[in-house]
Amino acid sequence: MSNNKKMVDAITARDADFAQWYTDLCLKAELMDYSDVKGFIIYRPYGYAIWEGIQQDLNHRLKETGHQNVYMPLVIPESLFQKEKDHVEGFAPETAIITTTGVEELAERLIIRPTSETLFCTHYQKIVNSYRDLPKLYNQWCSVVRWEKTTRPFLRGKEFLWQEGHTAHATEDEARKETLDILDIYRDLGKELLAIPFVTGKKTEKEKFAGAIDTYSIEALMHDGQALQSGTTHYFGQEFAKAFDIKFQDENNQQQYAYQTSWGVSTRLIGAVIMVHGDDEGLVLPPYVAPTQIIIIPIQSHKEEVQEATNHLFKSLKQAGFRVSVDDSSKSPGWKFSEYEMKGVPVRIEIGPRDLEKGFVTLVTRYNREKHQVALNEVTSIMPQMLRSIHDALYNKAVEFVQENTYQAKTYDEFKAYIKKGGYVAMSISGEEAEVQIKKDTTATARVLPFDQTLITKTCPVTQKSATQTVWFARAY
Amino acid sequence: MSNNKKMVDAITARDADFAQWYTDLCLKAELMDYSDVKGFIIYRPYGYAIWEGIQQDLNHRLKETGHQNVYMPLVIPESLFQKEKDHVEGFAPETAIITTTGVEELAERLIIRPTSETLFCTHYQKIVNSYRDLPKLYNQWCSVVRWEKTTRPFLRGKEFLWQEGHTAHATEDEARKETLDILDIYRDLGKELLAIPFVTGKKTEKEKFAGAIDTYSIEALMHDGQALQSGTTHYFGQEFAKAFDIKFQDENNQQQYAYQTSWGVSTRLIGAVIMVHGDDEGLVLPPYVAPTQIIIIPIQSHKEEVQEATNHLFKSLKQAGFRVSVDDSSKSPGWKFSEYEMKGVPVRIEIGPRDLEKGFVTLVTRYNREKHQVALNEVTSIMPQMLRSIHDALYNKAVEFVQENTYQAKTYDEFKAYIKKGGYVAMSISGEEAEVQIKKDTTATARVLPFDQTLITKTCPVTQKSATQTVWFARAY
Repeated sequence: MSNNKKMVDAITARDADFAQWYTDLCLKAELMDYSDVKGFIIYRPYGYAIWEGIQQDLNHRLKETGHQNVYMPLVIPESLFQKEKDHVEGFAPETAIITTTGVEELAERLIIRPTSETLFCTHYQKIVNSYRDLPKLYNQWCSVVRWEKTTRPFLRGKEFLWQEGHTAHATEDEARKETLDILDIYRDLGKELLAIPFVTGKKTEKEKFAGAIDTYSIEALMHDGQALQSGTTHYFGQEFAKAFDIKFQDENNQQQYAYQTSWGVSTRLIGAVIMVHGDDEGLVLPPYVAPTQIIIIPIQSHKEEVQEATNHLFKSLKQAGFRVSVDDSSKSPGWKFSEYEMKGVPVRIEIGPRDLEKGFVTLVTRYNREKHQVALNEVTSIMPQMLRSIHDALYNKAVEFVQENTYQAKTYDEFKAYIKKGGYVAMSISGEEAEVQIKKDTTATARVLPFDQTLITKTCPVTQKSATQTVWFARAY
Repeated sequence: MSNNKKMVDAITARDADFAQWYTDLCLKAELMDYSDVKGFIIYRPYGYAIWEGIQQDLNHRLKETGHQNVYMPLVIPESLFQKEKDHVEGFAPETAIITTTGVEELAERLIIRPTSETLFCTHYQKIVNSYRDLPKLYNQWCSVVRWEKTTRPFLRGKEFLWQEGHTAHATEDEARKETLDILDIYRDLGKELLAIPFVTGKKTEKEKFAGAIDTYSIEALMHDGQALQSGTTHYFGQEFAKAFDIKFQDENNQQQYAYQTSWGVSTRLIGAVIMVHGDDEGLVLPPYVAPTQIIIIPIQSHKEEVQEATNHLFKSLKQAGFRVSVDDSSKSPGWKFSEYEMKGVPVRIEIGPRDLEKGFVTLVTRYNREKHQVALNEVTSIMPQMLRSIHDALYNKAVEFVQENTYQAKTYDEFKAYIKKGGYVAMSISGEEAEVQIKKDTTATARVLPFDQTLITKTCPVTQKSATQTVWFARAY
């Protein structure tokens, strides 16, 4: 078991240094590697496979609800980028700009898309003419570039992978409904695929997206008590349509501006999965997004009965549709146990000669490291229920964690104490003045205005003015 | 039928002006649109869906053969890009370069990847240490940027979408095998998905990839007799490994440089599909890659029996796994017929009250516009065979077209006459001197050295020197 120890020793303990634990895990589980340019990471096969799992699931949800995939150019002419005032102010400092080719300077500088509102708007301006052309429910999967100063794998990069949806509608109601429907889709993705209970709500004026009327967010609570904004949906009203002249003839032959939305989730979700479920042994992947759901490790694999049972079980599980692998390499079983725990594979199956004599194999569930003796011929039939129960256990544990770490503050002192402990703190405040003060005093930021806006106190504990809104605060990534 | 006429009139006849026909079709079938930056196109939903079909099919083939997807950064530091001499010479003029952000000049210029050999090599240098780490069979789906002067939708763009595979192996044999195995996979993709018979072979020294020892290609013959290079695979030997110091310890504890390959197909395949199968009515999509395989058009859809039959048939076909849609919009049937012919939907089903009285519906196969009366309750069960026979007919037609337009030239005059007619012309030449002369005289270029290198003549008809190789020439996109 010395190899086993060696691998585990290489990760920092989660509660000793959460940030270091996270970085260690990203590298040791072979999710990513650094490239030669700071902030641009390499998505290694195991990390990219998690992203492919997310893509596949979300793509299905989006197509079922009538969305279509497209691909817009990587570059935005600088003049086009500057058309919507708030938007350009929000993004201009973070842009990366192509000014030249290998042989000549460009006549107009080209911005690498930090987000593609301007491109979709230009296209909609051309193809939307009548109410019959609406809605347009477009989405694209791509990478974007934002020149962030502080970067961390998956959480904040100069380049990241995401989907960006951009829709145009004939009415405000329909566009507002889309903004909230997508928020529901994101929440369901969290619950059903990632085993993460996202808190949803509206962003404050201060925190909303550059150019949006309303921004909504899904927030996840990491093990260290910090929140992670994991996706956003934006209602734009007609602001972009006016800037880009996206007009259509309505049913009464009147010219109207379209109502628009945009929304996205990114590879940041991989970071959320790591920091919500991971432990000192490494990753803990929820089974429906795990690239490998089951790893079979034969013990004394030179023995014929072990080989036979391994092949038989592998085929049976694969045929039943599970993502299953066998590791019959020459490494020691202990090394392998440690390796697949590090990689967070939900179920490990140990097939050894002694168990086999009795017709059994040993299943170990990664999240709680519990051992289960299961009859060889029952493994495949119990597997759907086993994965389901693992998923549910992870989700319920994460729900409990949110509940245990969500507080209501009636005084500013209470608020500060809770924020220090970590987690969400709900407080009713007077508005942006209080929000700014809170950030200055505690580094906590407004995560969301929950949909239930019941006031906790009538007076804002920070400014002593009338409380107008209830806000969930947290320190955040 | 006046609407019908109007739509069709908008496309240039294919034999009148093939280039214009192509552009008309790309726009009218709503495959793409132009953006504000020349050479960067918008992939509209219908065009992007074709790409998604290609991705899905090829991804499956690659994963089945042990390849893994990754994602490398969008940008390459200029110093890294310059590490392999031939490679940089080939690509440097076409590069787009980020020199600044919204707030400051970059310390080192960053090249937008025109291809990612240098990035994969840098990564392999870090992660390959032992023969046990090999082979590495990585692939990525992404967009690349090459600053081309002349651009055409899907065929040649400043940005295009593709997959690029990059592999590292312990032996030359294994790497050479990979190069040819992937060529076979590409050929199978053509035959089984796109109904295109790709001609395969090696590129001449003159035409090979910058940095490669050997380049292989799949070539397709367009309706106008011009060839289209549709994908390439490259054997690099150890050249990149030496430039990037990718060494591993072999089984005898000796340090060795790795042997590498790379290979790619791009959205150019969409252009091939258009130009191989399309006709004067528009696109003709092979059924297995068609985003919509079957379009159901109810005639007099207000009649209850028509509605019922439509719903019933739609559900039945969808349940059976076909990509099927219903168009019950208020447009005239004639308009719809024309629209879906333009879009190349393989099978149209017309459901009208008169046919229904007899228990029939009318199926029209797009490629030959033949009508088939089929009993309503047999449509779903005959559909697999119908799609198969459409696919086979398209493929066989394309094979015949290649056969009819492939010539052997024993004299240079013969050669020139054939090239003028269009198609492939095989000739045995002395080498690069002849190749250069041929291009100068006829604009034809060497497409491939076929695997069967039997000489047609002993003397090169161009230089009168000894013939050393048999080459297929064609004018090409």
